[in-house]
Amino acid sequence: MRVNENYKNLDESYLFSTIAKKVKEFSEHNKDVEIIKLGIGDVTQPLCHAVIEALHSAVEEMGRKETFKGYGPEQGYDFLKEAILSYYDKNNVSLDLDEIFVSDGAKSDLGNILDLFDKDNIVLIPDPVYPVYVDTNIMAGRKIVFIDANENNGFLPMPNNSVKADIIYICSPNNPTGAVYNKEQLSVWVDYAIKNEAVILFDSAYESFIDDKNLPKSIYEVENAKKCAIEFCSFSKTAGFTGTRCGYTVVPNELVFNNSSLNKMWLRRQTTKFNGVSYIVQKGASAVFSEEGQKQIKQNLDYYKRNAKVISDTLDKLGIDYTGGKNSPYIWLKCPNNMNSWDFFDLLLTKIGIVGTPGAGFGNNGKNYFRLTSFNTLEKTQEAMERFYELFK
Amino acid sequence: MRVNENYKNLDESYLFSTIAKKVKEFSEHNKDVEIIKLGIGDVTQPLCHAVIEALHSAVEEMGRKETFKGYGPEQGYDFLKEAILSYYDKNNVSLDLDEIFVSDGAKSDLGNILDLFDKDNIVLIPDPVYPVYVDTNIMAGRKIVFIDANENNGFLPMPNNSVKADIIYICSPNNPTGAVYNKEQLSVWVDYAIKNEAVILFDSAYESFIDDKNLPKSIYEVENAKKCAIEFCSFSKTAGFTGTRCGYTVVPNELVFNNSSLNKMWLRRQTTKFNGVSYIVQKGASAVFSEEGQKQIKQNLDYYKRNAKVISDTLDKLGIDYTGGKNSPYIWLKCPNNMNSWDFFDLLLTKIGIVGTPGAGFGNNGKNYFRLTSFNTLEKTQEAMERFYELFK
Repeated sequence: MRVNENYKNLDESYLFSTIAKKVKEFSEHNKDVEIIKLGIGDVTQPLCHAVIEALHSAVEEMGRKETFKGYGPEQGYDFLKEAILSYYDKNNVSLDLDEIFVSDGAKSDLGNILDLFDKDNIVLIPDPVYPVYVDTNIMAGRKIVFIDANENNGFLPMPNNSVKADIIYICSPNNPTGAVYNKEQLSVWVDYAIKNEAVILFDSAYESFIDDKNLPKSIYEVENAKKCAIEFCSFSKTAGFTGTRCGYTVVPNELVFNNSSLNKMWLRRQTTKFNGVSYIVQKGASAVFSEEGQKQIKQNLDYYKRNAKVISDTLDKLGIDYTGGKNSPYIWLKCPNNMNSWDFFDLLLTKIGIVGTPGAGFGNNGKNYFRLTSFNTLEKTQEAMERFYELFK
Repeated sequence: MRVNENYKNLDESYLFSTIAKKVKEFSEHNKDVEIIKLGIGDVTQPLCHAVIEALHSAVEEMGRKETFKGYGPEQGYDFLKEAILSYYDKNNVSLDLDEIFVSDGAKSDLGNILDLFDKDNIVLIPDPVYPVYVDTNIMAGRKIVFIDANENNGFLPMPNNSVKADIIYICSPNNPTGAVYNKEQLSVWVDYAIKNEAVILFDSAYESFIDDKNLPKSIYEVENAKKCAIEFCSFSKTAGFTGTRCGYTVVPNELVFNNSSLNKMWLRRQTTKFNGVSYIVQKGASAVFSEEGQKQIKQNLDYYKRNAKVISDTLDKLGIDYTGGKNSPYIWLKCPNNMNSWDFFDLLLTKIGIVGTPGAGFGNNGKNYFRLTSFNTLEKTQEAMERFYELFK
């Protein structure tokens, strides 16, 4: 048997293991320092009450013969798809029920969607980037072209018409930079994709952090996007489902390439290689859209947004450049004095016991940048940013 | 963007939609006939009490800040992997913890594992077969060689040394035939695989139906199997998890092809394209292995096994040939008078209101065979087989 040799082209990622090692070594020699982690990309607030109630109720159903559920539809139960549909409706995006596919998370679908595409496609990926976009394409042996996201374009790169791309990744609000495209900018991307007969893979996992009414939460708020874009979203950040696992993917019926409907292909892929998300989890996810659910998740989101404001206010006071912090849980700051991001990591750790993520871990354009996140507690975030202010004032 | 053109080579499957249509038409014209379905491959008994308790308790944990769980390990929590390890230990199979990967079901992993293999491998698949093995390989453009499972070999085909294969599918107890390989037979397959440097994909989803102590529940009960086989199992049939979604895949560390460790490749695949199974579901699955859990799932399994015996006893009395029924939830019978399986389907439906699955739906070698399942209630299974006996006595 011949293995998929493309796996040999993957770089080992040492980012988070190196961070963990450095933190461990420092704390062993400095037991008196309280280390505060602002590097984590994981939620910390518990599931809201409405979701907990729905989960318990679904568990009860599974324990009684009359209400027990076996195999469900691979693409998700209608009760959840209808709730998602209504949520899009509120943002003036009209979808058909069969365009929505419930998943166990955006990461799974962002990887698995590549099954639908030929190996011989050129992939356009911004740098810096969520490493999964890169690795999943290396695994398939596709050619990747990087596009610079940097200070000059506000970390919101626009298409270069001299570059031909077939598969385009856009994440907005962005991980790691926190930058958010406006409708006009996304519209240029949509036009470029249609002109090049390309598909846009739009990662909207952080859409619930958008407060600015003028910024799009969905790419389908942009005209013609249904002709070129697949959208991936998740309950992970919206409702704290990182450990509960549920998301959804929208594959519009208008997406037709080489006489093939991507919607029909994805349905076939999912019915063949997936058996749907746990009924219990889908019931929990649907409670997110209830009136109480919406109120309760807003409290959690507001908590993280307040942390983001604590961080961005401190950077504002210090005159340190950054993107994100508004409409995003991530703050992407320029290392003072043009420091290398790993040197800056060491400085923060050893001087003030703060852990963040060096931008170099996300690509070349991150080598003088640093990512802070808003997912720790308010108290610790405040304490961390006081120490930060004292160091750089 | 060029789509994956291999999808165009997939046959549309009309098996279950045709069955549904025929049943609907018949019942509309025969409202007085109580139709009994023995075609379903889905469990009907609710989750056992121990699992329900564990699920509730995990939901509670997710609702409290102190016990909330965010992202877990992609390959599964140790508490569940350790429980699975102990279960293998009881069958005298010794595994390392990092050889076990918790999945959202065998179907997902059976499809996704193919990511690790080059397109240019020859795939050996028995006919009749669970259609997913075929379709997932057509999607990847691999060449498939079929091997006959028929009356002559008791639906347990053995390797043909003149055929070179790279990827070999074995499902035992088998879906749809219910036939089970013994250790000596599996040992011949293991030797063949090692000689051909092939990998065996061993689907053991129905292992919990094996009562005969001499029949292997795991391929690793056979010497050298760790050098050539990946095993896929599931809580779906074992503990009624078809709608709850959890399974596990074993990728031994000894599996090395072209200097590549399949275990390391699978870990990389899963950490890149998967985010693990819901903590809540994993807690529920781990309760299956508790003392109470084992007792309670045995009751459910015994219930289905009793149904299987009702069916096989009737066929014995009538002198109708079949495989399965013992050590398997499936009964694969030879249509009387060498009838075509669709004609037999029509006969059972119209004469006695019984619905089963025509063997033709599983491959050429099924065209004169018929699948009955043990997943309906005891009362309905008894009623169905009384009608069956009256028709064929």
